[in-house]
Amino acid sequence: MGKVICTGLGPGNPDLMSVRSDRLIRGAAHVAYFRKEGRAGQARRIVEGMLADGVTEYPMEYPVTTELHFGSPEYKSALAAFYDDWADRLADVAARGDVIVLCEGDPFFYGSFMHLHSRLQGRVEVEVVPGITGMSGCWTATDQPITWGDDVLTVLMATLPEDELASRAEGSDALVFMKIGRNLPRVRSALQRAGKLDRAWLVERGTMPGQKVMKLTDFDGEVPYFAIVVVHGQGRRP
Amino acid sequence: MGKVICTGLGPGNPDLMSVRSDRLIRGAAHVAYFRKEGRAGQARRIVEGMLADGVTEYPMEYPVTTELHFGSPEYKSALAAFYDDWADRLADVAARGDVIVLCEGDPFFYGSFMHLHSRLQGRVEVEVVPGITGMSGCWTATDQPITWGDDVLTVLMATLPEDELASRAEGSDALVFMKIGRNLPRVRSALQRAGKLDRAWLVERGTMPGQKVMKLTDFDGEVPYFAIVVVHGQGRRP
Repeated sequence: MGKVICTGLGPGNPDLMSVRSDRLIRGAAHVAYFRKEGRAGQARRIVEGMLADGVTEYPMEYPVTTELHFGSPEYKSALAAFYDDWADRLADVAARGDVIVLCEGDPFFYGSFMHLHSRLQGRVEVEVVPGITGMSGCWTATDQPITWGDDVLTVLMATLPEDELASRAEGSDALVFMKIGRNLPRVRSALQRAGKLDRAWLVERGTMPGQKVMKLTDFDGEVPYFAIVVVHGQGRRP
Repeated sequence: MGKVICTGLGPGNPDLMSVRSDRLIRGAAHVAYFRKEGRAGQARRIVEGMLADGVTEYPMEYPVTTELHFGSPEYKSALAAFYDDWADRLADVAARGDVIVLCEGDPFFYGSFMHLHSRLQGRVEVEVVPGITGMSGCWTATDQPITWGDDVLTVLMATLPEDELASRAEGSDALVFMKIGRNLPRVRSALQRAGKLDRAWLVERGTMPGQKVMKLTDFDGEVPYFAIVVVHGQGRRP
């Protein structure tokens, strides 16, 4: 009887995955990863060249990503059926040996694997290996500390309503906005209202080839869903 | 002319440092790390057995840790002189070759290296390698996701006033309290006021030998400064 082991890949540069993750991936006979239908998938791309000969791959293709609103019953039932199905399939694979599930960033920090993790409880042994978060990769790319002293850090999804983004931006020392994409105008407006727009940085593809780091006020255009906006804290420094 | 490279060691288990960090440490001729006077130091302990023969070590011993209040002028001036001195010394070492500075967790996330980083700007090339944060190690140790869907995560230092801890605890979906130690009663009381005490977990030595994971309501006693309290989000899950 094997295990389902979800391993964090870190922010994107393969050199930034953990030693344990690197070893698990290179030694894996069964590897699963999420992707959008018809795409190679970012998780799979990160491990390119690392998989052993003869590995069996299990691409888990989301039935829907942004075509339906995540709050709709159709979205929820499609995703629930998808996770149910893959929990069954991974449990079957694990009955024959370990299966390694690749997860960008840190699996328990907004990662899709958590929906399999909850469904696999009591059926098979499940292990999670943490990873460097995408946000750590992004604030490191800005070459500035995100938090000093007693700074309060708030992590927000840019999908939240603008009023909530603005009030939380006002009330926190350091900020990370994730899932930017089409939500960028709302983030910009919320930061403007909170008086923090001029301190905001936009990071695309942090730690990866093609990395872009820009002051948000210098940027005008479209960004990918996985871009991140950070506002650094200004706390105590001796 | 070498560089000052600060590399994140991750949450404590050497297997959880990045591949790049592992390589930098094993290949280093000059290694610096912070520690309390008279102690081995947690950063140095993590890399035990990894350093090359003939490496030169630079233990950077804090002139003061918790003996003075961090807000006092004496604390600030002692720390400022300490960082000034080590910035000079590391710049000198880097003139002869790369020096690797070890930093627990992720260097730009509440790490002491930031005080050297700011002082070294314009004097020597400085590079920072991110690491898995201590909090990621701790929430992974609880075997539960910290955030789901659009959960808001707030990271707080337990050194803050209880009223602030309580109001922020009330207003956030997921919470991480760091620097617990003697501040545990304040965190407990703040969580009680916010109605979240029964959802709080205390993690000591996350990912390391002797790891302890307990519901905060089941615990009564003293904890180290670097213990972490987490409250998991309860957000959207299909």
